[in-house]
Amino acid sequence: MLINRRKVYVEWGHCDPGGIVYFPRYFEYCDACTLALFEKAGLFKPIMLKHYGIAGIPMVDVRATYHAPSQYGDTLMVESCIPEWGRSSFRVHHKLFNADVLAVEVFEKHAWVARTTDVPTRFKAQTIPQEVKDAFSKRS
Amino acid sequence: MLINRRKVYVEWGHCDPGGIVYFPRYFEYCDACTLALFEKAGLFKPIMLKHYGIAGIPMVDVRATYHAPSQYGDTLMVESCIPEWGRSSFRVHHKLFNADVLAVEVFEKHAWVARTTDVPTRFKAQTIPQEVKDAFSKRS
Amino acid sequence: MLINRRKVYVEWGHCDPGGIVYFPRYFEYCDACTLALFEKAGLFKPIMLKHYGIAGIPMVDVRATYHAPSQYGDTLMVESCIPEWGRSSFRVHHKLFNADVLAVEVFEKHAWVARTTDVPTRFKAQTIPQEVKDAFSKRS
Amino acid sequence: MLINRRKVYVEWGHCDPGGIVYFPRYFEYCDACTLALFEKAGLFKPIMLKHYGIAGIPMVDVRATYHAPSQYGDTLMVESCIPEWGRSSFRVHHKLFNADVLAVEVFEKHAWVARTTDVPTRFKAQTIPQEVKDAFSKRS
Repeated sequence: MLINRRKVYVEWGHCDPGGIVYFPRYFEYCDACTLALFEKAGLFKPIMLKHYGIAGIPMVDVRATYHAPSQYGDTLMVESCIPEWGRSSFRVHHKLFNADVLAVEVFEKHAWVARTTDVPTRFKAQTIPQEVKDAFSKRS
Repeated sequence: MLINRRKVYVEWGHCDPGGIVYFPRYFEYCDACTLALFEKAGLFKPIMLKHYGIAGIPMVDVRATYHAPSQYGDTLMVESCIPEWGRSSFRVHHKLFNADVLAVEVFEKHAWVARTTDVPTRFKAQTIPQEVKDAFSKRS
Repeated sequence: MLINRRKVYVEWGHCDPGGIVYFPRYFEYCDACTLALFEKAGLFKPIMLKHYGIAGIPMVDVRATYHAPSQYGDTLMVESCIPEWGRSSFRVHHKLFNADVLAVEVFEKHAWVARTTDVPTRFKAQTIPQEVKDAFSKRS
Repeated sequence: MLINRRKVYVEWGHCDPGGIVYFPRYFEYCDACTLALFEKAGLFKPIMLKHYGIAGIPMVDVRATYHAPSQYGDTLMVESCIPEWGRSSFRVHHKLFNADVLAVEVFEKHAWVARTTDVPTRFKAQTIPQEVKDAFSKRS
């Protein structure tokens, strides 16, 4: 199973008046890490969307558990993988480590969808091609 | 149980290249709605933190389920309430309606914490005062 | 000259560890206010782009002067107008008042551009239709 | 004069429905680059604030000129330096290159301020210590 590891530096502007990372920022970190995992699998998002004729891989369900706060100047190591593939959806799991501490975990579920019309908000689930799934079975 | 209803206008800059709301933005919407609910209960966050000597109400667990995408120009109606109080934590539930459609649901779990030292990232759970809980039992 | 006035509430998540609005947020506020001004002129951005066959109204130059910081819980009143039209560009001026204080001023210059190819980053300036300019000469 | 060079990867979530970087994001990029420049000079912001007893280095004036748009997947090289020091303020200049193209330039003016009271929004300009200025005269 392909795993991507990516460093994320916590910027001043990512933190709130309490001095800790404003929690929605973790989802931005993880979204970038999901796309980096796809890129590692050879699937750069804009090209992938065109190649497979899909509109996107929108989030349908996401959960985060926060074990420890982080602050400006911390470097997080994010480990990302796809533990489960469905017919038209897949799960992504991110572990965010701050030094040796597992600070945050994020569990995403994405759909693989086409646009049904030219309205941006009308999607229809599509079968994920086997070759896409296979691209993530490489060793990392 | 106190319920707060708040309109959120989806801005152009909240949307991604796919033309739909970039999913981390929903957490910003909901965070603002949680604080608006507290304000409706008479608890304006900065004053509340000082009054009760706490460092904050950090997120410990959050989940979102996305039922339908939204786009620039949509107005969401967000309904927020606190369905459950623990000793030192509480849950917030947000329903985001786009016209008549339940577009997104967000389930937050916050802790009620004091700072143990002057390091922003060292927190200790505190017992939530009964009067805080009582403030949310008013009718909305 | 059409003027739009819009209230912006400063959210907790808009503020940095210093407890004041993180300065890039002001540009998000103003971008929303520019589009609200267009909407007041009868030009809702997505429809306007299609109607006139343009790719967008990208920023080419922007300046902000910060006179006073704002913090969570403040309500800003933003006054927006278009003081100057060029052949293929226009200026937008925003004044952000915090109570009676002029807290921030933002001066934007936008271009009116078409896409030359299907590459998102290749733009070509277009002549702004007179009817667009006329839509902003109404009294507010 | 100390110069810092930093790569910034344009993420999907930094881009708007037009497919190009949403312009306020460039200010987040540059703020991070300003602090990275300070860190290169041996002045990590949180420690610097404590050491010199200041509240922050808030923006008082900022201007950006956009020469070319960037899109998801682009890597920007940001060159940052401090071309001018005043008694209680300083200017930062950022050049953002996308491949060989100067895509964006940002001109910041920051103040060096102390807090006058415990209200986060009351600042008073302070004289910048000579040793702070000297830290940026090193060769990069």
